[in-house]
Amino acid sequence: MNFLEERILKDGIVKEGNVLKVDSFLNHQMDVELLDRIGEEFYRRFEGVRVTKILTIEASGIAIACAAAKYFQVPVLFAKKSKSVNIEGDMYVAEVESFTHKCKNQVIVSRKFLLPEDQVLIIDDFLANGCALQGLVSITEMAGATVAGIGIAIEKGFQIGGRVIRNLGYPLESIAIVDGMDAKSGTVTFRAQ
Amino acid sequence: MNFLEERILKDGIVKEGNVLKVDSFLNHQMDVELLDRIGEEFYRRFEGVRVTKILTIEASGIAIACAAAKYFQVPVLFAKKSKSVNIEGDMYVAEVESFTHKCKNQVIVSRKFLLPEDQVLIIDDFLANGCALQGLVSITEMAGATVAGIGIAIEKGFQIGGRVIRNLGYPLESIAIVDGMDAKSGTVTFRAQ
Repeated sequence: MNFLEERILKDGIVKEGNVLKVDSFLNHQMDVELLDRIGEEFYRRFEGVRVTKILTIEASGIAIACAAAKYFQVPVLFAKKSKSVNIEGDMYVAEVESFTHKCKNQVIVSRKFLLPEDQVLIIDDFLANGCALQGLVSITEMAGATVAGIGIAIEKGFQIGGRVIRNLGYPLESIAIVDGMDAKSGTVTFRAQ
Repeated sequence: MNFLEERILKDGIVKEGNVLKVDSFLNHQMDVELLDRIGEEFYRRFEGVRVTKILTIEASGIAIACAAAKYFQVPVLFAKKSKSVNIEGDMYVAEVESFTHKCKNQVIVSRKFLLPEDQVLIIDDFLANGCALQGLVSITEMAGATVAGIGIAIEKGFQIGGRVIRNLGYPLESIAIVDGMDAKSGTVTFRAQ
């Protein structure tokens, strides 16, 4: 069992409806030492892969992306979720549907920050149905850049997002893959890696 | 002139309507080395101040808050801007009005992560009219916690946010205070500190 799986068992809370709450250490309150270990683990898993930029999506992906960027020594670019008046006109926009929030979002990145020569490592905290991730992949390819890899902290292995992305041939690494949860007993089952 | 003022002069873009765009290094694409220096500078400016938690607001405050947290060795808590289905019922909510986005937002923090004994350092990337900051101060005080300090990367000194917060007696440190901008010439004037 790795450090993130251990932390999920220790501080994660399983709720009805396959909800895994990690808001005490990952996506509301954040343990910056844990974030650093996650960043280091992505660096280990993508050793030897050429990365020129890390792409994530607001909000909770930002902290992990910055932790990873320290190891890769590249800039972080975070996609915004709705049109902001402070973003320049020339943008890549992907339409994504959120299962969690039951609404459609636009994922937006300024064109000037993603170039065809970029080798993009996409980082996010959660992967479930993968809508946000599909938006980030789509934007990377709109820019003519390359998806060098995808790093996820926690994947819900029983939802389709990870399978779709692996089927499409993208190199996806999830530090913890949850294959099952039981709210009554509070148990979490991880996929062996 | 400090490192952040130098970077603003080098890579910031002044637009009509007192808009200062720093999206190439601070709030869309992010230079993680610069973030680290900002975090270190907050640590220097609040030397000797007891801090138990850093509070920020999604999205662009998160990266700076995490950089600072590494120096203070405390957790980061980021307020969310609208009710998310994944947040627990028991929350502190402040109503804030955004001048940039011309809408009202709720700033939300789970009660369980802010305690009366907390000494809170509030961190954000920008301070203009201070609506978001007022929401963070309000939530800290709802929790009975103490505002130990407020650290801002870039303050627009010609807008009211900083003056209001200093008048109220809060210890506010802004690394760069912009006192004037001119879109035609592209000049930025900083307040001497």
